[in-house]
Amino acid sequence: MSWLAKPARPLDEAARRAAVARQTRLTKPPGALGRLEEIAIALAAMQGEVCPTVDPARVLVFAGDHGVADAGVSAYPQSVTAQMVTNMASGGAAISVLAKTLDLDLELIVLGTVGKLDEASLPPSVHLIGIGPSTRDFSREPAMSNAELDTCLAAGRAAVERAVADQDCRLIVGGEMGIGNSTAAAALACVLLDRPAAELAGPGTGLDATGIARKAELIERARHLHRTASDTPREALRRVAGFEIAALTGAYLRATQLGIPVLVDGFIATSAALAATRILPEARDWMLFAHSSREPGHAVLLAALDAEPLLDLGLRLGEGSGAASALPLLRLACTLHREMASFAEAGIDGALS
Amino acid sequence: MSWLAKPARPLDEAARRAAVARQTRLTKPPGALGRLEEIAIALAAMQGEVCPTVDPARVLVFAGDHGVADAGVSAYPQSVTAQMVTNMASGGAAISVLAKTLDLDLELIVLGTVGKLDEASLPPSVHLIGIGPSTRDFSREPAMSNAELDTCLAAGRAAVERAVADQDCRLIVGGEMGIGNSTAAAALACVLLDRPAAELAGPGTGLDATGIARKAELIERARHLHRTASDTPREALRRVAGFEIAALTGAYLRATQLGIPVLVDGFIATSAALAATRILPEARDWMLFAHSSREPGHAVLLAALDAEPLLDLGLRLGEGSGAASALPLLRLACTLHREMASFAEAGIDGALS
Repeated sequence: MSWLAKPARPLDEAARRAAVARQTRLTKPPGALGRLEEIAIALAAMQGEVCPTVDPARVLVFAGDHGVADAGVSAYPQSVTAQMVTNMASGGAAISVLAKTLDLDLELIVLGTVGKLDEASLPPSVHLIGIGPSTRDFSREPAMSNAELDTCLAAGRAAVERAVADQDCRLIVGGEMGIGNSTAAAALACVLLDRPAAELAGPGTGLDATGIARKAELIERARHLHRTASDTPREALRRVAGFEIAALTGAYLRATQLGIPVLVDGFIATSAALAATRILPEARDWMLFAHSSREPGHAVLLAALDAEPLLDLGLRLGEGSGAASALPLLRLACTLHREMASFAEAGIDGALS
Repeated sequence: MSWLAKPARPLDEAARRAAVARQTRLTKPPGALGRLEEIAIALAAMQGEVCPTVDPARVLVFAGDHGVADAGVSAYPQSVTAQMVTNMASGGAAISVLAKTLDLDLELIVLGTVGKLDEASLPPSVHLIGIGPSTRDFSREPAMSNAELDTCLAAGRAAVERAVADQDCRLIVGGEMGIGNSTAAAALACVLLDRPAAELAGPGTGLDATGIARKAELIERARHLHRTASDTPREALRRVAGFEIAALTGAYLRATQLGIPVLVDGFIATSAALAATRILPEARDWMLFAHSSREPGHAVLLAALDAEPLLDLGLRLGEGSGAASALPLLRLACTLHREMASFAEAGIDGALS
């Protein structure tokens, strides 16, 4: 797939310098707005604008089922994935409520679910890709074929391209839904980082200690089964990731190529972000990290990506909910940067140089 | 002043239990929204509503000058306090931009400034109290007279009562402006907590190490001057606080009595919050803490109040800017709590009990 090899859009260092200079003139002690200043400056470099904006932003939620979920690694049955897609489409899920109240477009891309979804009964914001009911159980065999992986990556790419074409989208918020996907994300992280499963396996939607031990054992088995063969990030994705994780990776890569910042959600999304940076290292430059998940493996992924999220609120839901919750901070950072008066405009004495 | 002795409104434990029960039915794993769930539940208990709201909210910024500022404890001259009030009133300050973009009423209560303010040229949202140009230098004598302290506390009380009368305000966001007020806040904390100044003195608007040492020495001197006489929180406020800090304390107390949650800002505001809890311990129940300031003394104050703020973004501006930045999280917490579907409504399998 030639599109994966395309380069990242370079950052605009002149815009970054201009944004830094602008911050020093605003009516506050230098640096007093902390990370809100840093966000505005980082976005300026990405967007090539002294005064950047994150609107319009779009939430892309990718959904898929996991063969490995049959092995008792989740507190919920696979049927819940499709049911939650319906709940998201009809406005009842956390991400639906967040998108509506934050005035964000929400698009759902369903790669493949065990539960049946009726395209006719769903709104046009739901895209059914229809790869099949689920990935295969990666503790026994590769999760996907090459063709299936290509379809997932392309679905992520297409979703980002639609966001640009439809509304000149300035920020992508990625989310996911898939019963069992904290197991797939942990396996992907184990393979990409060459770490033992015990460091990455966590409770997910609510496993107890016995469940976590079973999950870690399964991931450890998969790690040994696939490790030597997973010598490229693409092959790691194919062997142990999920449809929705691969699609998120494709979305992050395409956003990087098109120069659109992405706001990365929690543990699952960060595993996809790590895969994206292994394919295209510059993808890291286009990522802002929204929140620290309560899922313990998230800290390992964040450290590998040298990422410090904006929020730490004990969230562990996925769906893009943590990223959506952090979006107001990005908006405020841009608005403060654009609208605050300078010392000169306000006629204020004693500005520090 | 008899009003200070009035009791707090009690929390509504039935509403809290109903909010807890509601959270368990929403379409997410139990606890998956972390502190966003806790906020909604805490606000339910405060407001006596299963589904609470923080709107309308009002930002009250109290401003005053400090006699101690003459001693070189700030990077800016005292004239900046009045200039920043004008900047806030005309929309150029961080808190003005935040209030406008978040659709919050902003009221400025000016207790007394060295710089002249022309009431006729200011909008009606600015209330000039006119106590005098500044407090007295508390390193030599008490900062305020009893009458001045009463005026400050009453100004905070009146501002909260206006917020209720004008718009049935559901949340108070407190802020402050006053060159030198991190010195007064540190002194107040030292006296209330009986801690050495070195633990509480920090860079404020931007002192270097020499400046911080001078500030700590001054506070330590004041601590010894006032300690034995400051046997009540009221007397501690009178001797070492500032006009705006005392007014914030009055506002927090009145909000507690009227049953209105308050969102506490950074270091200065938290020193006022501590004073309020020393006058009326139940005031703590009505406080949500917005952000961890980069000012090092803030951690000491937060520990004394057993408070864990929502944000940690390296802010150190004051004005209520950190509290305003956290407001979207409170709004999202309330909206998720109110609008998410239940498992039964969404027809989703396998809800955990």
